[in-house]
Amino acid sequence: MNPELKSDERLDELVQGKASILQKKHGFRFGTDAVLLADFALIKPRSRVIDLGTGTGVIALLIALKHLDARVFALELQGDMADMARRSVALNDLEDRIDVLEGDIRSAMRLFGPGAFDQVVCNPPYNQTGRSILPESENKLLSRMEEGISIEEICLSAFQLLKSGGRLSVVFPAQRLHDMLFAMQKARLAPKRVRCVQPFADRPPKLILLDAVKHGGSQLDWQPPLILQNKDGNYTEEWHRIYD
Amino acid sequence: MNPELKSDERLDELVQGKASILQKKHGFRFGTDAVLLADFALIKPRSRVIDLGTGTGVIALLIALKHLDARVFALELQGDMADMARRSVALNDLEDRIDVLEGDIRSAMRLFGPGAFDQVVCNPPYNQTGRSILPESENKLLSRMEEGISIEEICLSAFQLLKSGGRLSVVFPAQRLHDMLFAMQKARLAPKRVRCVQPFADRPPKLILLDAVKHGGSQLDWQPPLILQNKDGNYTEEWHRIYD
Repeated sequence: MNPELKSDERLDELVQGKASILQKKHGFRFGTDAVLLADFALIKPRSRVIDLGTGTGVIALLIALKHLDARVFALELQGDMADMARRSVALNDLEDRIDVLEGDIRSAMRLFGPGAFDQVVCNPPYNQTGRSILPESENKLLSRMEEGISIEEICLSAFQLLKSGGRLSVVFPAQRLHDMLFAMQKARLAPKRVRCVQPFADRPPKLILLDAVKHGGSQLDWQPPLILQNKDGNYTEEWHRIYD
Repeated sequence: MNPELKSDERLDELVQGKASILQKKHGFRFGTDAVLLADFALIKPRSRVIDLGTGTGVIALLIALKHLDARVFALELQGDMADMARRSVALNDLEDRIDVLEGDIRSAMRLFGPGAFDQVVCNPPYNQTGRSILPESENKLLSRMEEGISIEEICLSAFQLLKSGGRLSVVFPAQRLHDMLFAMQKARLAPKRVRCVQPFADRPPKLILLDAVKHGGSQLDWQPPLILQNKDGNYTEEWHRIYD
């Protein structure tokens, strides 16, 4: 048994076992949305990236593993989660490229200064109405509900943290796309690239991948839909490209 | 030759020849967007419907032909277009169910009074960037460019014309979806139902069908994508359902 593991934690595989991540046995565990967001974000060479509300650090880890010259910061409000994320970073020998910091998204600019990043990623907390998941623990609650912070505050913080031309990339429930667009507009971030995530080619999207540019233009650049399963129920080629 | 036809006009088929419509030989002619919008709008029984900026009247005609108990009004700024729409209504013996009026969308409430409609439809003028169509005539210009009226003004007029719970349905270029959502929000119309129109299942949407409800809720109800062609290039079953 791994000496890093606490009694309420488990060690899970990441990138088909090429990396690993600590998660709570009974808390929130990362899902498809995090993996898809890490894939969606267009990380430019030698980018400085920050993951706002990193939780167990999954998106920060995936981005650092995929983009070998990226310098990644991960901000998390809850001390035990930040500690877990930090230990996962160590487990994967990524201490030189990922810094995990404990802090509030709303005061992130005080930690990092304005315009310090090329890329902000965030899998924002949301109350995914339509599902009746009852939170099983407090950290699961904080990870899924808009209790602590609003999407407007996330977008405002992203605007402050980004360089001109830098991007905020998010994943969000499709049924609340308009709220995310309004929040971006309010923070003066220009919605830029959008992608619908569909379980099948002929089904409505459940999730939206979206990014916005600080001082960007006015056209939305629609990507082809990201289709997860073929008609026969097997995962699509693109699903395998992302997960394998 | 039809006595109603002027020298610069042509008579085109509608609904596979079951109806007909007068159009300018060299002006703007109706396209897929109008046909898809007429299909998308959820017209309730005995609805009072208004088409804002009806042009040749195509959407008003299609709705009246499909919904036999609908009472349809069609508003058009340009006198010659309104006249042509009126003659098309007569050609199809629909004078008892479609009224064509000449007037400005911005002052529509003065013509009809507040809350007079269950449903507003609009194929708004837009500058579809990405295509380099040069307008061939003034009416084509007015039909495609946001010269005369803004989408904010259209949404505001729709809000005034609609009953509580009534719907505005629009078709719009996908790359400007956010602008339409912002205009709806500004007019206090709640975005409600959305559908991406894609040339193929694995291609980005070009058009968005969208409706908004006066005094509506806050969730977007995503429909399955409307896919126009199969992989083999043939039109899809749904295309045939709409066009046949």
